[in-house]
Amino acid sequence: MSKKFVKDITLRDEDFALWYTDVCLKAELMDYSAVAGFIIYRPYGFAIWENIKSYLDKEFKKTGHENVYMPLVIAENLFQKEKDHVEGFAPESVYLTTDATSKSDEKLIVRPTSEVLFCEHYRKIVSSYRDLPKKYNQWCNVVRWEKTTRPFLRGKEFLWQEGHTVHATEEEARKEALDMLGVYNDMGKNLLAIPFITGRKTELEKFAGADETYTIEALMHDGKALQSGTTHYFGQNFSVPFEITFQDRDNQLKHAYQTSWGVTTRLIGAVIMVHGDDDGLVLPPYLAPIQTVIVPIQSQREEVIAASNKIKELLEKENIRVRLDDSDKTPGWKFSEYEMKGVPIRVEVGPRDLKENKVTLALRYNREKIQCNLDDVVPTIKKLIPEIHEKMYKRALEHVKKHTHTINDYSEFGKVIAKGGYIKMSIAGEEEELKVKEDHQATARVILNEPLLTEKCLVSGKKATKTILFARAY
Amino acid sequence: MSKKFVKDITLRDEDFALWYTDVCLKAELMDYSAVAGFIIYRPYGFAIWENIKSYLDKEFKKTGHENVYMPLVIAENLFQKEKDHVEGFAPESVYLTTDATSKSDEKLIVRPTSEVLFCEHYRKIVSSYRDLPKKYNQWCNVVRWEKTTRPFLRGKEFLWQEGHTVHATEEEARKEALDMLGVYNDMGKNLLAIPFITGRKTELEKFAGADETYTIEALMHDGKALQSGTTHYFGQNFSVPFEITFQDRDNQLKHAYQTSWGVTTRLIGAVIMVHGDDDGLVLPPYLAPIQTVIVPIQSQREEVIAASNKIKELLEKENIRVRLDDSDKTPGWKFSEYEMKGVPIRVEVGPRDLKENKVTLALRYNREKIQCNLDDVVPTIKKLIPEIHEKMYKRALEHVKKHTHTINDYSEFGKVIAKGGYIKMSIAGEEEELKVKEDHQATARVILNEPLLTEKCLVSGKKATKTILFARAY
Repeated sequence: MSKKFVKDITLRDEDFALWYTDVCLKAELMDYSAVAGFIIYRPYGFAIWENIKSYLDKEFKKTGHENVYMPLVIAENLFQKEKDHVEGFAPESVYLTTDATSKSDEKLIVRPTSEVLFCEHYRKIVSSYRDLPKKYNQWCNVVRWEKTTRPFLRGKEFLWQEGHTVHATEEEARKEALDMLGVYNDMGKNLLAIPFITGRKTELEKFAGADETYTIEALMHDGKALQSGTTHYFGQNFSVPFEITFQDRDNQLKHAYQTSWGVTTRLIGAVIMVHGDDDGLVLPPYLAPIQTVIVPIQSQREEVIAASNKIKELLEKENIRVRLDDSDKTPGWKFSEYEMKGVPIRVEVGPRDLKENKVTLALRYNREKIQCNLDDVVPTIKKLIPEIHEKMYKRALEHVKKHTHTINDYSEFGKVIAKGGYIKMSIAGEEEELKVKEDHQATARVILNEPLLTEKCLVSGKKATKTILFARAY
Repeated sequence: MSKKFVKDITLRDEDFALWYTDVCLKAELMDYSAVAGFIIYRPYGFAIWENIKSYLDKEFKKTGHENVYMPLVIAENLFQKEKDHVEGFAPESVYLTTDATSKSDEKLIVRPTSEVLFCEHYRKIVSSYRDLPKKYNQWCNVVRWEKTTRPFLRGKEFLWQEGHTVHATEEEARKEALDMLGVYNDMGKNLLAIPFITGRKTELEKFAGADETYTIEALMHDGKALQSGTTHYFGQNFSVPFEITFQDRDNQLKHAYQTSWGVTTRLIGAVIMVHGDDDGLVLPPYLAPIQTVIVPIQSQREEVIAASNKIKELLEKENIRVRLDDSDKTPGWKFSEYEMKGVPIRVEVGPRDLKENKVTLALRYNREKIQCNLDDVVPTIKKLIPEIHEKMYKRALEHVKKHTHTINDYSEFGKVIAKGGYIKMSIAGEEEELKVKEDHQATARVILNEPLLTEKCLVSGKKATKTILFARAY
């Protein structure tokens, strides 16, 4: 039964990159389209995104955010109002053209992000402190002309949400950027079973146009980091050029304070690379489109199909997402297929077990098999779901801990980073950060909110000023 | 109190077009962006779309459809495979360009609709009858370079869902096209309170590439029709050029049968123009983002605020979408504001009423005011919601009936159609349909599934073959 019937994939530790695209394709998460860099989100992959969306959308609304939809295109003159922002995005500019527009001078930029569209709208609708805060979000597609693309991780088009808020005070805007970082971090804990490390980005790594950028960083199985979402505090960087002003309580005309924040379909990539194994995807149960699959053994037998249908019905009543696969494929084929797809729990319903009023539960994340009385299937699965989630989270956390290193001398950096994982190091400043990047292709993932490890910077010997988590990253 | 405090709009019967854009803007459904034809969906307008989306998405999933996401762009050579289809969309082609692509030969078309993307994907993933049917849907933005644009009704970009299905048999595909027409029609009945007239389009009016197009047609207050959604039976028109073939049970290699179907943000326009009145929007309660607004009168009084909060809490418990407006604006301002926004029920909580343990309910759709015991507010509102829905539906249906005309002689057509509404007429064929269009700018909205009204065509005197509903349309 354990023999691979269907789809062999590259071993994870043999070639992680190849393993990754194998899983993407063979778990039927996506397919390539005819245009490089644009992928097709297949039903199973899109259902994962829908679950992320549904979780976050509820959290956004609970915290007073409203959804809107801004246009796909930005007039070029609008885009150029904030200098850092336009410089950050200019190299990958994409335009919308028609036979008509190509004759006109006005270039239409396809949104790589929508800060300027929100700013222009806020300029029009905000005039008094009574209008503030405005806390908008949108779910949409954006286009960036990336040179190298990989499914979910980096595409010419991707799906995301972008929150954009305007506030009357600096304090409130700063709080918003941190609050939303908290919402993202909680999503890792509650839905993705991914322990994020959160904190501020260095000046070199921050968003084009932001005063401060905060990040959720995740460590992949291969020891590389993945920036999984960011929140930005803009101060008045946009409100000044875009003239977003309001009459305050004291009758003074003031410029507003702003934030933005976003996560993308890249999170699907994070889930694959944090939890997956040699047999394919391993999905945390709250995220999984199918939480339990029922596989009848000897499905021609009436009592097997009757019991399978009964279990399905009972699980559906408890709002557990269940699929009964009663197709004419072999049980072995089905086992491999749903293992590849990372379904957390498999219920095997066989005639021998049934005689003893039992079924077998097989857990995807640790390969455990549990015999279970027919009457206990539903309560057992209801207990297993939070347990599996908890254990997958802990396992991922262990991985982070095990792969977070400190060094005593900068000469060790290369050897340690080559094995993968984070290096925690206190450094002097930007010059040293750049040197690490040049020497080792490792970037500052986040400034840790921790005491200095050393008084002196290991890189330059100057006075250390902050502790940084370095890693090679996607 | 009934005096207009805030926002005057054009009278509906004075200038319907101006009234329409006034409502769009002043009910804060949308705003114009800096680029003509691309609109901003503001929170209140987008929330209406979210309610439509949520209703339909459930129905689609219930009937076995799965969501996917296809790329924003189509390689031009792919687009050109189905001749009628490409001819239908070519005049408004929009391209995605970058400094890189403009040097290359491969043109990237921004999707005006995604038939060819689905076809190309189906070609790859369908090979056996076991793979069928595939019933996919996507929610996305599309771009069409329309010359004249109007908020929600016709834009250079709009939001929609497009369902695309592949089937092993003609029968099954034909049934799918009709089933989805039924889902749309039910949405009119259950959510929008709009009585659609459903049926087949004539050859002249059908979708580029379809064998048959079915439509849901709605009659606006001004007597013009609005095509509000369509479903298409493609036969093998796409599966042949795109080579979507499958091995059938009989081992023969066959071409599959296909459908597609979609509704757009245009439905928001339909709701405005069917139900709205001189004071603005009138929303049917199941669709309304705010079903009940609570307006405290003399909101400085503690007992007024306490009672308002209590009512809000009780309504929220019953999952009624409620807003309490305790801002420092005047009650009169608030009355106008929420009337403009079409909130179905207003609860006025005033100190005089409260003394008698009462509140006043004001219904938006018919201006009725109801005194109601404080203890009865929740059950009364729960009873009112389906009642209001029902009555709004009936009122809209009466409007359709009152404005559906028959004529005895073609010479009457012009006078009757000038008053607005439908003209039902049996005609001979395409030539006569074209003549009506040229003479009166009235198009065949739908072929009615009804007996012939006259033996001879009123237009040409030839033998009548079908009964058509004519109207001027948006």
